[in-house]
Amino acid sequence: MSTVMAREIAEQPEAVRRTLEALLPVREEVRSLFASRRRVLFIARGSSSNATLYGRYLLEARAGVNAALAAPSIATHYRADLDLSDTLVVAVSQSGATTEIVEAVEWARSHGAAIAAVTNVADSPLAKGAGLPFVTAAGPEVAVPATKTYLTQLVAMAVLGDALGADVAEPLSRVADEVARSIAAPDGLDTAIDLLRAADHAVVSGRGLCLGTALETALKIEETCLVPVRGYSYADLRHGPISVIEPDVTAVLVAAQDGPMAEPMVELAGDLRRRGAQVVGIGGPAPFGQACDVHVPGPDLPESVAPLGLIPPAQLLVERLARALGRDPDTPRGLAKVTRTDTD
Amino acid sequence: MSTVMAREIAEQPEAVRRTLEALLPVREEVRSLFASRRRVLFIARGSSSNATLYGRYLLEARAGVNAALAAPSIATHYRADLDLSDTLVVAVSQSGATTEIVEAVEWARSHGAAIAAVTNVADSPLAKGAGLPFVTAAGPEVAVPATKTYLTQLVAMAVLGDALGADVAEPLSRVADEVARSIAAPDGLDTAIDLLRAADHAVVSGRGLCLGTALETALKIEETCLVPVRGYSYADLRHGPISVIEPDVTAVLVAAQDGPMAEPMVELAGDLRRRGAQVVGIGGPAPFGQACDVHVPGPDLPESVAPLGLIPPAQLLVERLARALGRDPDTPRGLAKVTRTDTD
Repeated sequence: MSTVMAREIAEQPEAVRRTLEALLPVREEVRSLFASRRRVLFIARGSSSNATLYGRYLLEARAGVNAALAAPSIATHYRADLDLSDTLVVAVSQSGATTEIVEAVEWARSHGAAIAAVTNVADSPLAKGAGLPFVTAAGPEVAVPATKTYLTQLVAMAVLGDALGADVAEPLSRVADEVARSIAAPDGLDTAIDLLRAADHAVVSGRGLCLGTALETALKIEETCLVPVRGYSYADLRHGPISVIEPDVTAVLVAAQDGPMAEPMVELAGDLRRRGAQVVGIGGPAPFGQACDVHVPGPDLPESVAPLGLIPPAQLLVERLARALGRDPDTPRGLAKVTRTDTD
Repeated sequence: MSTVMAREIAEQPEAVRRTLEALLPVREEVRSLFASRRRVLFIARGSSSNATLYGRYLLEARAGVNAALAAPSIATHYRADLDLSDTLVVAVSQSGATTEIVEAVEWARSHGAAIAAVTNVADSPLAKGAGLPFVTAAGPEVAVPATKTYLTQLVAMAVLGDALGADVAEPLSRVADEVARSIAAPDGLDTAIDLLRAADHAVVSGRGLCLGTALETALKIEETCLVPVRGYSYADLRHGPISVIEPDVTAVLVAAQDGPMAEPMVELAGDLRRRGAQVVGIGGPAPFGQACDVHVPGPDLPESVAPLGLIPPAQLLVERLARALGRDPDTPRGLAKVTRTDTD
């Protein structure tokens, strides 16, 4: 059986190439817009917010740029009087039409921020109102779960990071091929799905640059497969909730093959297994694969752009798990494509 | 049966009074330390991080001060080269000895930040290394679940906010009495516990200034009662995971009696009930109580300081739920009082 979601997952190598072609030439404009400003503030919700989490770590860890995620209600409900004259706001919304995000951007502009808008829709309210429209080229996405729009948002984050000093242009040029490779030959997925089907509870964890990938994987399992999942940062999980890990839990861990988080993620896999959890690992270094019950190989990419190569295997896991559970991944119950947070 | 946790919950009115007495006179020093700086960056983990979430909303919504939560691994693992010369770092740690937090603060100082340290231990490494030790007066806390140290951290956040312009001194002076009142006569708890015991899954949600209270309630239910709980912001829940709400779910919602979030929280309660969830409401305006299956009354405090009055009923719920489940709330499995995130 072929779903729209599966087709859109497979379209991602081309979506990545098109988006790089569109956005790499805009880096100079990003630098101009940032100019003398001192920080980046991301405005987003849901999957887009998980994409910005990657952007935030990339900017802080690799570009030396202070970055944070806004609480949109500070704009929409509290109408806070903040001085944003030192701030570049990067708003991220697939549709560019989410009312809350458009309103929050209006608020940011009126408080002095420069605005860049990452969206997949060139003539959307968000793109039209931005000082710099940063339009991804995912093409139309029909299935409700974001796949290629999410990955191209990550591409936009990486280009933004590169423009501001993260130096990721070289590995970025290898992402499309790595994505194609992982989609063509996904290993370990069937066993991973068996473990997730048998589990009473699932948790997903990752850390640092890969934290957003973990949270996005958790969100997609929950929304698309209607399985309750808790997504934790590595540190939050270690700080307390690890005590609820029991043999009825399946843990999905997402890791890059290198970087300062690789070793702690190997330890986390071992710790979770000692507590009785079944551990599915996506990506990571070789010892990580050995420390997990099931290993889904990740991309041959450095940590700086690993999230772009780690999400396709997670998407395949979600699409197949949904079907294994008798769900239609294309139209999960209760979700619409443009999301409104509020009725007001 | 009386537990240490129950006793420490009951000690909170005095802990609040002592902490206000200690910290209100230090407001001028907070203003001096902030001086020409432009933003506040909180560094914390776990419960302390939930306390800083209140601090963040209070500063942005009511004091017009840009605020964000740091990702500690940016300091401890990525050793990012950020310019923090415009930043006041507020580190929060009950023990003042959490290695990760102490390291992150050292990093922040070496990158130009001014440092205020909120801790319950005056001679801790965190307090001794801070430009401004902001020491809470909770007294010794013996039970593992943080109760009075958490509430006094909220007091510290409120005093910090007041120092920087949030104007909450008057309602803050009424918190201790409101806490005493809610501990003396807790309504609705027995029915709430019955609902939580019968549920397959639990979710906890809140919004804006009360979001941290919701996440702290979720964390405490999970750690102390070993019940898997998902804590969501109102917006995150609405944006997707609300589709997994089914009749086997009990939702705990935390709300202030006034402010821009009161009305949306009433709507959320109704929405969740229409989807079949059992809804326990803590606090909120009168229509909120009517929209829930079970209502635990909150404090008679404005939204700006409502989190300080909303956490004691949630603590009582946790302590009694743990006992109802045959757990010892004083020493939950797998948790120690000083938390280390990493072994490295």
